[in-house]
Amino acid sequence: MSERLVVIGGDAGGMAAASEARRRRADLEIVTFERGTRTSYAACGIPYHVAGMIDPLDKLVARAPEVFREKQQIEVHLRHEVVGIDSAVGTVEVVDLESGATRTERYDHLLIGTGARSVVPPLPGIERAHTVHTLDDSARLLELAKDSGATDVAIIGGGYIGLEMAEAFDVWGARVVVLDAAEQIMRTLDADMAALVQQAMTGYGIEVRTGVSVEGIDERAVLTADGAVPAGLVVLGIGLVPNGELAGAAGIELGVRGSVRVDDHQRTSAPNVWAAGDCAESTHLVTGAPVHIALGTVANKAGRVAGANIGGADLVMPRVLGTAITRVHQTEIARTGLSVTELPGTAFEDAAHATVEAKTRAHYFPGASAITVKLVADRASGRLVGGQIVGGPGAGKRIDTIATAITAGLTVEQVIGLDLAYAPPFSPVWDPVATAARILARQLG
Amino acid sequence: MSERLVVIGGDAGGMAAASEARRRRADLEIVTFERGTRTSYAACGIPYHVAGMIDPLDKLVARAPEVFREKQQIEVHLRHEVVGIDSAVGTVEVVDLESGATRTERYDHLLIGTGARSVVPPLPGIERAHTVHTLDDSARLLELAKDSGATDVAIIGGGYIGLEMAEAFDVWGARVVVLDAAEQIMRTLDADMAALVQQAMTGYGIEVRTGVSVEGIDERAVLTADGAVPAGLVVLGIGLVPNGELAGAAGIELGVRGSVRVDDHQRTSAPNVWAAGDCAESTHLVTGAPVHIALGTVANKAGRVAGANIGGADLVMPRVLGTAITRVHQTEIARTGLSVTELPGTAFEDAAHATVEAKTRAHYFPGASAITVKLVADRASGRLVGGQIVGGPGAGKRIDTIATAITAGLTVEQVIGLDLAYAPPFSPVWDPVATAARILARQLG
Repeated sequence: MSERLVVIGGDAGGMAAASEARRRRADLEIVTFERGTRTSYAACGIPYHVAGMIDPLDKLVARAPEVFREKQQIEVHLRHEVVGIDSAVGTVEVVDLESGATRTERYDHLLIGTGARSVVPPLPGIERAHTVHTLDDSARLLELAKDSGATDVAIIGGGYIGLEMAEAFDVWGARVVVLDAAEQIMRTLDADMAALVQQAMTGYGIEVRTGVSVEGIDERAVLTADGAVPAGLVVLGIGLVPNGELAGAAGIELGVRGSVRVDDHQRTSAPNVWAAGDCAESTHLVTGAPVHIALGTVANKAGRVAGANIGGADLVMPRVLGTAITRVHQTEIARTGLSVTELPGTAFEDAAHATVEAKTRAHYFPGASAITVKLVADRASGRLVGGQIVGGPGAGKRIDTIATAITAGLTVEQVIGLDLAYAPPFSPVWDPVATAARILARQLG
Repeated sequence: MSERLVVIGGDAGGMAAASEARRRRADLEIVTFERGTRTSYAACGIPYHVAGMIDPLDKLVARAPEVFREKQQIEVHLRHEVVGIDSAVGTVEVVDLESGATRTERYDHLLIGTGARSVVPPLPGIERAHTVHTLDDSARLLELAKDSGATDVAIIGGGYIGLEMAEAFDVWGARVVVLDAAEQIMRTLDADMAALVQQAMTGYGIEVRTGVSVEGIDERAVLTADGAVPAGLVVLGIGLVPNGELAGAAGIELGVRGSVRVDDHQRTSAPNVWAAGDCAESTHLVTGAPVHIALGTVANKAGRVAGANIGGADLVMPRVLGTAITRVHQTEIARTGLSVTELPGTAFEDAAHATVEAKTRAHYFPGASAITVKLVADRASGRLVGGQIVGGPGAGKRIDTIATAITAGLTVEQVIGLDLAYAPPFSPVWDPVATAARILARQLG
């Protein structure tokens, strides 16, 4: 009897692990149970499908079950939900959601990739709000969006999903209002940077209201502490919560926000049980603290590491910076590492920071647009610990330079010295990241 | 009598130094002699002015003499050429090119920023070829370009300037042929990557001929060993040579290709004499070897370092990677560090390399285009030593991630682990740079 890997969840974390394990061990039997109807779909693409930019929907499926089966000998059972783990024996309880039948499946290695789900607050009428998570959600929202030209669309939550859905409905001509309970949208940014995003959205005709306490939803409006906000359609995007319950019920240790705790090899507290993806915890590169970051980049890396280690390797999961990027129309938004808001409680409480406004291209070059770069650095060592960018086309991916510099422990002076690429269509002669470092260096003395 | 800094040359190297020295020392008297008619102009912008994208020409002047005078108390004498340096006494001989009068000026600190000039081979009829260096060249070429719709334009040299001028004339509808003596264009790239560029140019209707030995130019054609190439207009862009002669004549040590040798503080071999910009030598970050790299990025950094040190600081010039970027229409081209071609003779002769073709955005996202990334890594340490990119919009500036990783000494495995930004409009979930690293890692074992 060959060794057997059971994977719970057929999305990024699970399937990256399955693929990497297969690459390392041709002899392994690999079986995946996915409670939904699809494998490896790009949830990040949903807002753009709703915006009408991606057609057909199937394009968002990175790899279908039959491809896993044929090309990688990975067996995938859709509509099968794992409802119990017995890590002492090495079995899982699986329910066939079509027939209702339950069976027990043995494993030698188990990978938990149960993902995360949208946070849905218990408010009156909340069932009227559309969450944005599955491709079925996407299909439904696209149909609604197409007819939304004369509709008031309220989006609850001014984070990544909220902004992307605001763009999507704005594309179709809807009147869009984004409601956020906090005093700013995009809380992974500092308030000054979030204000730039809000300003850009207002410029696009997307209304943004912050400090709004939603109390319920009725047929025609979102009900708030300050009155009713007309809404023929309501979209909910206030965050994700990890699906850690299955692991927790099996006595596996949980971590931040109920995510599955893993070591630097993606091992859980139970023998031969691994976790990866949106259900699992990560470790922050700058602070060393455990964090829950539900991003495709992290899920794919963690899956690769788990799969490699299941396959006999000794791979360490890289620590994460929470690097993220999005856009609203032409406005690009990116962040990495620690924001100033996140400093209290870390070892970098008195970190220095500087913000510069520059241009994405040489100032004289057509299409040069404003880019604002904010950098945060440890005062003692001079090392960069965080960065944020808001700007026009070409601005956002510059965050990668900052993320790479933070990862490598570069000081602000070293960032000034980086030999970054310049030509008029691409950058000023001092890249805005280096310019921000120059300003920050003056504060560090 | 206050201390006096004399700057020879009013472009990037010289004026960056003057500005930084001023910032550090309000008391310094600063005088610049520039033999041309302008200060601090963006030579890199010339091809785009010729393409009709930048109007008026004055936009290419970053800072005019009167602004230096008024805002920074930096005196600029245009049309004044320094023809001799006496570093034993601390004086320069200056010719007023308008009156022809010569005078002697004393200095306490001298900054040599004499720049570089276009290489002009001694061929019959070469005076018919237009070089691309000054704003006067730019103005002349724009007038010619506007009328070039029915013209055969031959561009001698398939480097950065050659490609950019090819785009410029192609914009105006000219029939453009690029002639290169080597077996490939873009010799700062490896042949396989240069072939991708050539293929893209051919696709744009720009003819490229390699291995062409130019023997002269007549009224109607470029004469080559393989026959005449019809050309109503000829542009020459086969490289730059540093203006090191003035320093050399003063007994100051010269280095690679006759550039002015400097230490890591931009000091020349003569006391109180500094150099920066296209006339000066640099040190390669990977090999530690002296190199001559005539790029605005390096000139500005070197000027800043020289100026800071003249102003009393103790700043070290960062080593360079020769990071460069350009484009031909929608095709972006970038490189940094060592190419495979450059490995022989270095300590990295048996470096490993890998090339991947990926997409600039999520494969399903509109506008996703091909990007090819080539990475080079030291086999012994696993450290990245070079990278090249050819691809569609958004491809090129990814070179900055590679340049930062090389500078920081990151290994290929560390590059895989980088927390780079992902969202469908910006990148696949694995950024193409990380994907290239994954392929390269398999070779490194």
